[in-house]
Amino acid sequence: MRQFLIVGHDAPTTPEFSLDDITGGAGRLDVLCRCVTSAFFLSHDIREDVSVHLVLGDTFTVSFEGSDLRRLNPDERSTAALIRGALENREDAIGHLPAEASPGVSIRRMGFTAMLEELAAEATVVELHEDGIPVAEVGPPTDPLFVLSDHRNFTDEEGAALAEAADRRMRLGPEVLHADHAVTVAHNYLDTDGFARY
Amino acid sequence: MRQFLIVGHDAPTTPEFSLDDITGGAGRLDVLCRCVTSAFFLSHDIREDVSVHLVLGDTFTVSFEGSDLRRLNPDERSTAALIRGALENREDAIGHLPAEASPGVSIRRMGFTAMLEELAAEATVVELHEDGIPVAEVGPPTDPLFVLSDHRNFTDEEGAALAEAADRRMRLGPEVLHADHAVTVAHNYLDTDGFARY
Repeated sequence: MRQFLIVGHDAPTTPEFSLDDITGGAGRLDVLCRCVTSAFFLSHDIREDVSVHLVLGDTFTVSFEGSDLRRLNPDERSTAALIRGALENREDAIGHLPAEASPGVSIRRMGFTAMLEELAAEATVVELHEDGIPVAEVGPPTDPLFVLSDHRNFTDEEGAALAEAADRRMRLGPEVLHADHAVTVAHNYLDTDGFARY
Repeated sequence: MRQFLIVGHDAPTTPEFSLDDITGGAGRLDVLCRCVTSAFFLSHDIREDVSVHLVLGDTFTVSFEGSDLRRLNPDERSTAALIRGALENREDAIGHLPAEASPGVSIRRMGFTAMLEELAAEATVVELHEDGIPVAEVGPPTDPLFVLSDHRNFTDEEGAALAEAADRRMRLGPEVLHADHAVTVAHNYLDTDGFARY
């Protein structure tokens, strides 16, 4: 299982935003939408062994499960509509239990630190960092959880929690990439294990 | 210089489309927009040594030059607006000469075969193919031109022209990717040359 936990610092926590303005009124939701597309889409297929968790404003987390997804399309607008649909169901998310909003999409009332702690229990937490080990030098981790931030850097508190939880600190290449591009490169790294190093 | 030539088979050739419906009425223009974003954006920078050429309906080609780009944003909608702006200037594209529509964005009256022929003269043409050589096995080409298709396969005629023009046939990994994800992986391949193979 490959997982991605992505923090949307300015992302909405209520569904009152316009699909025509996801870069502005919806706090750069476009970045998170592209991360979802990068995580799941192959040319003519969906990656079923993938989960994506989007932290919205450190209040809610919307999760996408590849094995159950039914209505995902690759464009930003339709993914934003799925996130909005999840937010419309936010009152059903009681305690830390997830509430399903559409097939494969659920919402729970958990911020970054709580989600990280829960996911870390059964994953190899990967921190992407410019001082990390180049991925080409080491074999892929088992059940990796890549932790990423949107257009902003992690806050000091988030960064500290991630450094504490991280099993590996790696870098994907010499350039610092947008989160969605990092997701794509991470997949390629995992896909090509074996033929990258013989 | 890194270049990408991307064929939009259903893409519009006139500016009469809605930015609210780029996946439908605008013939999957979302795919081409994401390719532009993948080609140019680094985390806090634009890749200046990149050109992207979008073939629209085999009638026009809209080109983006990284060194001159001024108004590019990473979301699909704003990139679609730049393409629409170029199409509004299509009458200024006389013969095969490009007409500038906005800083770094121009349009010319050329379809796929003519563009490929022109670009191939000064580039190493790379055909991405599932039977190609894995990129990890060979060093990056000089001045590569990656030729990609949108959500459709190349037509037989396009495929034949590409096979004829191709200097290298390569594959980026074991999975077949969306065009925009292929652009991201191609960049990473070029970026990491050196530390991928020691």
